[in-house]
Amino acid sequence: MSPQRKLLLLGTFVHSKTQQHLEFLHNAAVAVDEQGKIAAIERDVAEASEAQARLLTQLGWDEAEVDVTVAAEGQFFFPGFVDTHIHAPQYANAGIFGKSSLLDWLETYTFPLESSLADLSKARRVYTRCVRRTLSHGTTTATYYATIDVAATNLLADLCLSMGQRAFVGRACMDNPDVNPDYYRDASAAETLRATQQTIDHMRSIDPGFDIVSPILTPRFAPSCSREAMAGLAQLHRETNLPIQTHISENLGEIQLVKSMFPEADSYAGVYDKYGLLTPKTVLAHAVHISEEEAELIAHRGSKVSHCPCSNTSLTSGPARVRWMWDRGIDVGLGTDMSGGYSPSILDAARQAALVSRHVAMGIHVPEGGGAAAVEQEKERERVKLTVEEALYLATRGGARCVGLEDKIGGFEVGMEWDAQLVSLSQVSDDGGMEEHDHGHGLVDVFGWESWGDRLAKWLYNGDDRNTKRVWVKGRLVHKRK
Amino acid sequence: MSPQRKLLLLGTFVHSKTQQHLEFLHNAAVAVDEQGKIAAIERDVAEASEAQARLLTQLGWDEAEVDVTVAAEGQFFFPGFVDTHIHAPQYANAGIFGKSSLLDWLETYTFPLESSLADLSKARRVYTRCVRRTLSHGTTTATYYATIDVAATNLLADLCLSMGQRAFVGRACMDNPDVNPDYYRDASAAETLRATQQTIDHMRSIDPGFDIVSPILTPRFAPSCSREAMAGLAQLHRETNLPIQTHISENLGEIQLVKSMFPEADSYAGVYDKYGLLTPKTVLAHAVHISEEEAELIAHRGSKVSHCPCSNTSLTSGPARVRWMWDRGIDVGLGTDMSGGYSPSILDAARQAALVSRHVAMGIHVPEGGGAAAVEQEKERERVKLTVEEALYLATRGGARCVGLEDKIGGFEVGMEWDAQLVSLSQVSDDGGMEEHDHGHGLVDVFGWESWGDRLAKWLYNGDDRNTKRVWVKGRLVHKRK
Repeated sequence: MSPQRKLLLLGTFVHSKTQQHLEFLHNAAVAVDEQGKIAAIERDVAEASEAQARLLTQLGWDEAEVDVTVAAEGQFFFPGFVDTHIHAPQYANAGIFGKSSLLDWLETYTFPLESSLADLSKARRVYTRCVRRTLSHGTTTATYYATIDVAATNLLADLCLSMGQRAFVGRACMDNPDVNPDYYRDASAAETLRATQQTIDHMRSIDPGFDIVSPILTPRFAPSCSREAMAGLAQLHRETNLPIQTHISENLGEIQLVKSMFPEADSYAGVYDKYGLLTPKTVLAHAVHISEEEAELIAHRGSKVSHCPCSNTSLTSGPARVRWMWDRGIDVGLGTDMSGGYSPSILDAARQAALVSRHVAMGIHVPEGGGAAAVEQEKERERVKLTVEEALYLATRGGARCVGLEDKIGGFEVGMEWDAQLVSLSQVSDDGGMEEHDHGHGLVDVFGWESWGDRLAKWLYNGDDRNTKRVWVKGRLVHKRK
Repeated sequence: MSPQRKLLLLGTFVHSKTQQHLEFLHNAAVAVDEQGKIAAIERDVAEASEAQARLLTQLGWDEAEVDVTVAAEGQFFFPGFVDTHIHAPQYANAGIFGKSSLLDWLETYTFPLESSLADLSKARRVYTRCVRRTLSHGTTTATYYATIDVAATNLLADLCLSMGQRAFVGRACMDNPDVNPDYYRDASAAETLRATQQTIDHMRSIDPGFDIVSPILTPRFAPSCSREAMAGLAQLHRETNLPIQTHISENLGEIQLVKSMFPEADSYAGVYDKYGLLTPKTVLAHAVHISEEEAELIAHRGSKVSHCPCSNTSLTSGPARVRWMWDRGIDVGLGTDMSGGYSPSILDAARQAALVSRHVAMGIHVPEGGGAAAVEQEKERERVKLTVEEALYLATRGGARCVGLEDKIGGFEVGMEWDAQLVSLSQVSDDGGMEEHDHGHGLVDVFGWESWGDRLAKWLYNGDDRNTKRVWVKGRLVHKRK
């Protein structure tokens, strides 16, 4: 990549201080060096311009070598979003799922589309649009499932690198002839490993340090893989320390299938553990129906969960319990799981996470007639709901932890990399009218009396890509809009 | 209103043929007369231009007196949306509700905002924006709650009329000093009726036939009203045949409150029935927790239900059962219930209706181990899910039935009025890239191989105001965007 200019960002910065709290830095400045790292932060000065002067002096940077971006009144910088589970080929099907649930959805909609992307011109068209769109939604890191096709998977990696999206790109491994269709599967476990290795070699050739694009080992889900393929991928993980992604416990029919196929394991999580795939670098998508024992095992192994609320509702999989997983010490991030989820936007996923947590709450039975038990259950109902702050944490730092990048991205601290977005909300005019040019500014209407907390709530619930005016990854500007 | 020009619309038209089926009219033409009524429809001709020629001849219209709008390739006309329950003053709070549920939400967020709109300049700003935004979302008919303030309520009616949105505008009636705050309530039942009459008189003065703007009698909800106020409003209904709107059975705490306050009635629905408010012209918002007996009573009285999925989830009220209400013969429409619901968009409400129906499905217990009971429950799970077609029916014809306008709006038939939107989806370029100008075209990406059914699904799940390029009410163009 060509050397970058230094950056200076001025204005209001908002990020998760903790899981429960957002921090607001007003009249602040962030300096980003040529490697895309945050070199210094100046906060709470009277004027942003003052911060600028101080920082340049402190760093010994010349004004001429620095590109300055100022967040205007009401705008703010926010960490880029992390999508911990998204299927790039399925972008073409976003919104198309009918009344299906997981297993028939795979057969009806998903396998035919995925297999068709062996046509590289089609793959280029779908993948380009997917990366462009997710960048425009503020997704600075995406953990992709590709297809079984090596060339198309490598193409996805190329596109992420050229468009500047931080990405984990996984070739989907699926060699079980009893579950996968003949037209779309690996010929054998050996083929699974050979093809996976080819994608690793390719990504090493285009990004030797895996700084922007990294391979991720991707056994599709237990039923789709032979024991040999799973064990082989686990061996590859131990040799390379590459991350792993797969699905777990999304749907009741799927769980029955796993039970019948793997009698040697106690549980779905137990299958992955038995074949060496439950590691601290493993991202497990869904985890809707996991048991206490499975949660304990996952927490013990340090594996992470990608919560995919939009998908879990759309495919009638079930409402996953984020608070319950947090209680058990499991790190959780957000996944769009597009196109199981219809939306490629993590802001949408964060919103859905807040909504689904309310469905979890509504599912908690409160005994009639009061009493201590009723009071306890009422409290629990309140407790499981996710706040605006928690939903935005999941979308940023939660996701960063999930993919092992918590020291690099997800918040604004010196030494971290500048993966960020500039967010702008619409200011309502005095007469409340709307002009043609207002249409481009999105749906979040700020009247002026709102607190900053209220503004973030408005953004979470009514925001979209129109509010994301600039996106940077590792200091590089990768998306902008008027 | 000034006389309108005749309209001729050419291209693809999509509307609900039945609750389960959309009808697609390609290469069709619709002629709309000066009163905004559909004068003729020509369908399935080889070319739209041919339809145009035929229609003009048939009607004896001169080309010069007709404005022609052509839906381009991939665009389509769709009926305008009907919002059967929306609180205009709360627009300023859209997205702000924290972790609250109904009763604390009213006190914390809603009453302070509503009472502040006695300031007419503030009311003008909020209401103007609300009407502009809902029009831009394709809402051609809105059933509004205003506030208790007569002048501000009349202002909302003025604004709807001038901006051309078909609206039912209701002054919120709330005279119970035990429930409503001192700073925001009617002084007495007599005051409730007097103030309501003032808003009726005003609307009659600005729109004598109530063609565009109509009053609607609005007891806020049973706990907020005295028995005298409810009985008085019911008497007014019998004298005027004006429609009625209120809330019912939204939240468990509210239901307990009603039970304790109205021991003379068997149920929440029974309270309204006792005081004469359960009529064929009554719209009941929410109906989340109604009993079999209440459903039977509501169906028997011919009252309607406004389903508010976004609000019911946001405020943790509960998942309302649309299929269950349909089974019992109740007409159902959609309400945004903004700002209990965060979104003023009915397309969003339709999407949430589909999602919430899946949460209803997930709440149906399927006994383990199979057997006839399990099979039955599995079937029921499938049955309660709403399809794309059903969600869009709720948003249009369902809503029209709800507000008693099913013979005028909600579909395209000769004699109905032209309340419609022109919808345009984004066409993905051959290379999948996105240019600056693509940003204005919304999030629905069509690759070109999708069926029309798939396109509608994509619109339902990823569409927004950017896809709604033109909006007409009664033949008048009331919104357009590039």
